Amino acid sequence: MPRRFESTTSVDALVSPEGSLEVLSQHEVNRLRDTSRNGHHDLLRRCALAVLSCGSPLDDSKALLELHPNFDIEVLQQDRGIRLQITQAPGDAFVDGVMIRGIREHLFAVLRDLVYVSNEIEINPRYDLHSSQGITDAVFHILRNAHVLRTNHLPNLVVCWGGHSISREEYEYTKDVGYHLGLRGLDICTGCGPGAMKGPMKGANVAHAKQRTPIRRYIGISEPGIIAAEAPNPIVNELVIMPDIEKRLEAFVRLGHGIIVFPGGVGTAEEILYLLGLLSNPENQQQPFPVIFTGPASAEAYFRQIDLFIQQVFGEEMRQRYQIIIDNPPAVARAMKQGISQVTEYRRQLNDAFYFNWRLKVDLIFQEPFEPTHSAMAELELNQELPTNLLAANLRRAFSGIVAGNVKEQGIRAIEEKGPFQIQGDPKLMRSLDQLLRAFVSQGRMKLAGDTYNPCYEVIS
Amino acid sequence: MPRRFESTTSVDALVSPEGSLEVLSQHEVNRLRDTSRNGHHDLLRRCALAVLSCGSPLDDSKALLELHPNFDIEVLQQDRGIRLQITQAPGDAFVDGVMIRGIREHLFAVLRDLVYVSNEIEINPRYDLHSSQGITDAVFHILRNAHVLRTNHLPNLVVCWGGHSISREEYEYTKDVGYHLGLRGLDICTGCGPGAMKGPMKGANVAHAKQRTPIRRYIGISEPGIIAAEAPNPIVNELVIMPDIEKRLEAFVRLGHGIIVFPGGVGTAEEILYLLGLLSNPENQQQPFPVIFTGPASAEAYFRQIDLFIQQVFGEEMRQRYQIIIDNPPAVARAMKQGISQVTEYRRQLNDAFYFNWRLKVDLIFQEPFEPTHSAMAELELNQELPTNLLAANLRRAFSGIVAGNVKEQGIRAIEEKGPFQIQGDPKLMRSLDQLLRAFVSQGRMKLAGDTYNPCYEVIS
Amino acid sequence: MPRRFESTTSVDALVSPEGSLEVLSQHEVNRLRDTSRNGHHDLLRRCALAVLSCGSPLDDSKALLELHPNFDIEVLQQDRGIRLQITQAPGDAFVDGVMIRGIREHLFAVLRDLVYVSNEIEINPRYDLHSSQGITDAVFHILRNAHVLRTNHLPNLVVCWGGHSISREEYEYTKDVGYHLGLRGLDICTGCGPGAMKGPMKGANVAHAKQRTPIRRYIGISEPGIIAAEAPNPIVNELVIMPDIEKRLEAFVRLGHGIIVFPGGVGTAEEILYLLGLLSNPENQQQPFPVIFTGPASAEAYFRQIDLFIQQVFGEEMRQRYQIIIDNPPAVARAMKQGISQVTEYRRQLNDAFYFNWRLKVDLIFQEPFEPTHSAMAELELNQELPTNLLAANLRRAFSGIVAGNVKEQGIRAIEEKGPFQIQGDPKLMRSLDQLLRAFVSQGRMKLAGDTYNPCYEVIS
Amino acid sequence: MPRRFESTTSVDALVSPEGSLEVLSQHEVNRLRDTSRNGHHDLLRRCALAVLSCGSPLDDSKALLELHPNFDIEVLQQDRGIRLQITQAPGDAFVDGVMIRGIREHLFAVLRDLVYVSNEIEINPRYDLHSSQGITDAVFHILRNAHVLRTNHLPNLVVCWGGHSISREEYEYTKDVGYHLGLRGLDICTGCGPGAMKGPMKGANVAHAKQRTPIRRYIGISEPGIIAAEAPNPIVNELVIMPDIEKRLEAFVRLGHGIIVFPGGVGTAEEILYLLGLLSNPENQQQPFPVIFTGPASAEAYFRQIDLFIQQVFGEEMRQRYQIIIDNPPAVARAMKQGISQVTEYRRQLNDAFYFNWRLKVDLIFQEPFEPTHSAMAELELNQELPTNLLAANLRRAFSGIVAGNVKEQGIRAIEEKGPFQIQGDPKLMRSLDQLLRAFVSQGRMKLAGDTYNPCYEVIS
Repeated sequence: MPRRFESTTSVDALVSPEGSLEVLSQHEVNRLRDTSRNGHHDLLRRCALAVLSCGSPLDDSKALLELHPNFDIEVLQQDRGIRLQITQAPGDAFVDGVMIRGIREHLFAVLRDLVYVSNEIEINPRYDLHSSQGITDAVFHILRNAHVLRTNHLPNLVVCWGGHSISREEYEYTKDVGYHLGLRGLDICTGCGPGAMKGPMKGANVAHAKQRTPIRRYIGISEPGIIAAEAPNPIVNELVIMPDIEKRLEAFVRLGHGIIVFPGGVGTAEEILYLLGLLSNPENQQQPFPVIFTGPASAEAYFRQIDLFIQQVFGEEMRQRYQIIIDNPPAVARAMKQGISQVTEYRRQLNDAFYFNWRLKVDLIFQEPFEPTHSAMAELELNQELPTNLLAANLRRAFSGIVAGNVKEQGIRAIEEKGPFQIQGDPKLMRSLDQLLRAFVSQGRMKLAGDTYNPCYEVIS
Repeated sequence: MPRRFESTTSVDALVSPEGSLEVLSQHEVNRLRDTSRNGHHDLLRRCALAVLSCGSPLDDSKALLELHPNFDIEVLQQDRGIRLQITQAPGDAFVDGVMIRGIREHLFAVLRDLVYVSNEIEINPRYDLHSSQGITDAVFHILRNAHVLRTNHLPNLVVCWGGHSISREEYEYTKDVGYHLGLRGLDICTGCGPGAMKGPMKGANVAHAKQRTPIRRYIGISEPGIIAAEAPNPIVNELVIMPDIEKRLEAFVRLGHGIIVFPGGVGTAEEILYLLGLLSNPENQQQPFPVIFTGPASAEAYFRQIDLFIQQVFGEEMRQRYQIIIDNPPAVARAMKQGISQVTEYRRQLNDAFYFNWRLKVDLIFQEPFEPTHSAMAELELNQELPTNLLAANLRRAFSGIVAGNVKEQGIRAIEEKGPFQIQGDPKLMRSLDQLLRAFVSQGRMKLAGDTYNPCYEVIS
Repeated sequence: MPRRFESTTSVDALVSPEGSLEVLSQHEVNRLRDTSRNGHHDLLRRCALAVLSCGSPLDDSKALLELHPNFDIEVLQQDRGIRLQITQAPGDAFVDGVMIRGIREHLFAVLRDLVYVSNEIEINPRYDLHSSQGITDAVFHILRNAHVLRTNHLPNLVVCWGGHSISREEYEYTKDVGYHLGLRGLDICTGCGPGAMKGPMKGANVAHAKQRTPIRRYIGISEPGIIAAEAPNPIVNELVIMPDIEKRLEAFVRLGHGIIVFPGGVGTAEEILYLLGLLSNPENQQQPFPVIFTGPASAEAYFRQIDLFIQQVFGEEMRQRYQIIIDNPPAVARAMKQGISQVTEYRRQLNDAFYFNWRLKVDLIFQEPFEPTHSAMAELELNQELPTNLLAANLRRAFSGIVAGNVKEQGIRAIEEKGPFQIQGDPKLMRSLDQLLRAFVSQGRMKLAGDTYNPCYEVIS
Repeated sequence: MPRRFESTTSVDALVSPEGSLEVLSQHEVNRLRDTSRNGHHDLLRRCALAVLSCGSPLDDSKALLELHPNFDIEVLQQDRGIRLQITQAPGDAFVDGVMIRGIREHLFAVLRDLVYVSNEIEINPRYDLHSSQGITDAVFHILRNAHVLRTNHLPNLVVCWGGHSISREEYEYTKDVGYHLGLRGLDICTGCGPGAMKGPMKGANVAHAKQRTPIRRYIGISEPGIIAAEAPNPIVNELVIMPDIEKRLEAFVRLGHGIIVFPGGVGTAEEILYLLGLLSNPENQQQPFPVIFTGPASAEAYFRQIDLFIQQVFGEEMRQRYQIIIDNPPAVARAMKQGISQVTEYRRQLNDAFYFNWRLKVDLIFQEPFEPTHSAMAELELNQELPTNLLAANLRRAFSGIVAGNVKEQGIRAIEEKGPFQIQGDPKLMRSLDQLLRAFVSQGRMKLAGDTYNPCYEVIS
């Protein structure tokens, strides 16, 4: 919001850790240095730069790196602890040479999570990352290590999904909804980044201040592939970097007590498919889980389109898992508050934890990382004969691939080399899908900014 | 900022006290009821309505009362304590029937201060309200009773003055300055209300969140005559209602450790004259007291005009008491931080308190309430032969009268009845004054909104 | 408990204020200095010395002053605030030249209360100290000014009465009861000093530590005439000095939610009479108010004696207002916990405050300070024909006089001059009284230490 | 201290976890159950019983188990978390059926540490428990997992060693020293248990209360073999169970900033030898590390004896590593405070952590667990020709063996079977050793209570 930034100059700094990295053994320091120097150095550098550029309007990892070509980060062993040596960092992250504390917290959250995943999860035989249970365990441990699991806290966490590149009107609407959630004591969890991921936090922040809410949580859950495009906004006061998109989605649904979906693009569609795939699982059908699609009046067409798609593809019953509320933030907030009170009641009855939804069944097909290569995309089985959750899972993957082709470095490069992804399936389904995607394109929801959209896919029936 | 409000409907409610009104003796409850019922009921009602309308764009007490004609407030004795019975209050102050906590705090701050002044200050023989010392003592006690005087707090309070009706560009600039002050750990004190009184708080609030600042103070100091036009914005977390404009000004200069002046109109000019009148007092000349005039590039002409006026009227020396920084929020913040560190050093050396500037000499002519009747305005001695502080005091009163004629209920009515105030003095001075006022008019700084300005004064040389 | 003290040497020191005396106006500082220099200097000096000698085994004001003949205390105006200049103070109150913080708090509590009573209560026309309501208001304001009235706190305050000079066995028993109260989350209020006033706090302190109780209140309520004999033990973390014995008694019964009486002497008998006089008032009979007399097995005779006296003098019905539990601390604690839960329920139903029992009716005869001169003692009407509360009030006064004759400076001097007090009344009552007093003498409960007791009274029938 | 306990009856209860065991993954819950059921169930049961018996005068594991033959403890999986099912536990750990919170914390500390060591340390290839570095790492991780390593805390931790079965006079002296340490803001760490391990905490607790010290640490470091004999007293608010005596000793010296040794028996001698062995290491000689031997006048002979032994065995130079202060608690406290300020300065200069002394060199011979079998004891090389640290290490082991023979279950059984340990070495050394041990016997420092001491060793020269 402040319109002018202190510098386009770069800053070198030596930064002390925050939180869980403050007390490390010598052995841990060594491993941290090794990890940050070797295999993961480039990943760490990219993520760190994104975090340090949170004030910047750029949301493209490559562009950021080009703007700060000499930016670097190194873990130093000092004082029997660590320091981060930052070189040629964006000046806006600093005030008179001292890094802004919230950004410092984000920076160490990135380091913490990348290292934890690398050192404690990936190489630890305890986690069977090919079993559903093992993946859930990994998600749990990453979140606990990030101190996001809080006991003594009643259910009040609303996950907000939606596009990071939405219209001004839609953005204001997300703030307004956040404001009315915050007035009712609800906290916000989003995927970090701008647009629908920032608006609800900003609104809630104002409302929490008005209500003098003593504990205010703005949880951001990101992943390495997306963090440059969706750098954590500074309101985020708990940041977690999950290792991949599937674990990030699982973190959302196990942490959150309800979900609001704002307008967005294919990414949002991916999230909706994931969620509906889960909720349609018979094992989950007893669980209350409030899901609300909402937007300003101008977004009504968008949600009608999605609603129609869901109806066409999955049938009427699936429509019971969500409600659509148009242009009415207080009503959204009241419905969410009401839905969460049912969640609370349900967990109480079953003696379930409030801070992590162990009971939610997530099938392995929703957990396994999907790598959207051309062949993987082409081979996706998209067929209305499939069981609901398998069809939802495959559609989720299709959307995920389109997101990668649109905005992720690797995806973009693949498209440049091999042309658009081929998505094929039974004709009726393909028609519905094509219709939906075309609507996204025509509503300008497919690309971050400006140019006409060049589809990275072809729908083949 | 949230664009839509929950209701235009009115709400009735029974509200429990906050803070110092929680534990009252039966005798105090009785006096409170009597005070609020009799002489002060109308004052209490107007102020309470202003506080409850903080989300409203209206800033006119009469218009507010017309919009909520049946609004009322009554102190009930209950539970061996008190409750406030609110009738037909603006719905936006409530969430699902419960008053927003910050607004509740403001409401009880209003009640506390009106009652304290009436019961403890005005009728208490201890305070000689005709002596300089007695008035200062009253200011001190009102502030202490409001828990605004904090020990164990290093000097960091920046008072921000400026217009409540400024351009969007100027408003964004005040936010930007507030942001850079907040990044440096500085707190904000303003006169409540919108414009230059809200912007710095909003900016600082974002910066404090980014810096995870543990204690964040947004002090609003209002007075009954102005509160409707400048209702406390919800960010204010410490609200004080001083009994009149002079005590409000004294509260600003004794509480604050530095002052920033943003563009404004005659009200701002009044504040500048008051401040310079004080600082030019020989007894105050050893004291460091940072004063910065600042605005965006477009406001440069405005400050040049004022600078010229000061030079013409008081001479070159007076210009040493302030600096002008145009279009550079970080530089403003750094200069203020630096200035306050000198204040800290000075107070340390003299063993002075940090929380209240007892040492500042405020002459009785700056303390006595000035009632801007037509005759009082006509009799103001405005003559460059006068001693500096007397001339500053009289000019301050002239501006104060124009503010009243422009926006205060009583002043407007007097102008309607008797025509414009006559301001007279020596020709050179009157020329400078006329020039300044004309500039304000032509820059559109004389009226809240819209219409062409109909001057409430005539300058006669 | 630590057996050796750092010094018999004296210390000079300059001490900064704590709490409510930190932020004073210049006017207040002046009045404080005047008050402490003139009329009240001697009182302040005696009380301050008692507080600074809390580690000493002496409990006689005169003896203390003789031991520290050059001890003095002066209020200095400095830094626009105050400092206390302490001269030749007992060395044990300091660690390496710095006053122990708890003792510093007590010292400023003494200053605060003596000055508040003198400046705000005694000369303030608001308080009609000859009316029951006015006295209660004064008690309320002194307690509120001392920050003892806490909202948001469920009833849990147990007042413990009993002798300050009891046997080791009885002392251990009071600790044991305090321990079991503390285990159940109850706080302690006593009259300060050693014996039955210290034991329950020590026991509760250990229990609170075991239970990790977050807020632990050890309230001591003293008065100037008794403070030297009963200096606040260091566990006391909220100290109040009430102006006289009657206001101190009223403070106990309005603050406390239940009362435990341990063995003691005439002072304890005075307290019992006061309490029963109140509780027998028909207006108070609906109120639950748990009262428990308790002691080790060896104290059974003592309580039987008192029980018998009450029965003889007031009849069977009065015995319903208390229960006697011998040698069973857990049972005492459980009964008290249970009684307080009824108090909580009752206050909830009537919307009464938890922190101050406004509803308790205290007749003016129990509130007016009684000065035990020889003539006042001789004129006490002691007659079983009197209404119960009047008889209780007069007996209370008789015991109060004996306490003064035993331990208070003024009383002792009067007895030395004029011989023993003459107490007269109807023969049956006098017999009961004589029996009770003789039992106290024979049980060694009449004198602090050592010597045979020389009665300061004669009972005449 | 409370003389009477609520029950000799047993209590069954279901207890919820505290602290780090509150948020567990399902996998962790399973492993916890398995660990507690299988190999470690007996260990857990014994330690838990000791903790639950902290009010009991018994200090013998076997005797405790005989008194509570049906006591049992089981980890239940419930609510997606754990509960402890306690059967037939000592009633004094409960108040009206609810476990005392401090005891509950101790109980879960025991569970936490036993499980952590078993699951995370012992089977984790990361820790090479045969290397010095690996053992130190394990010590660090156990302490960190117990949240004992605190950043943002200036050095102030005094480790107090000494006998758990000392005279009343010596016990009072340890309280007195603790009191004077506490007055100076120092915290206490001991080995848990009664005597010299409880006294300093009690004294410091009173002093901390007097000084209103906001954070008060009473750290107890125990080990499974000793916990029954030295159950954590209830003042302990941070409890750690180290896996063996050597890691416990290392925890003391790496955590503490200074060490006070009170009178004791062979256990204390073992600790002294350990400490001097370390400090005599050339790599440690630059480090300030205050060590004070102290006791009442009656203990002077004891320390002279030890001083003489050290002089005879190691020579004059070793005497520079400690000072002896007799009968002067304030002087002890001042010397310790002074010594710790040098530690602080030293760590600052070298950028060392305050919370863990990584720089201290501990040779592997001081770290490897020593199992005092008859053959191990017989084979100890005790020879003044040995390098100092090796000789100190072996003498430490000899004393450790005698402790085991005196009080540990396994040791006692071995002595019963095979007769006394044979300790042999060069004649001069053996004479000094014999003299020392005889002095211990004659001073009654060799056995817990009552009976004449039957030596569990023979010194052979």
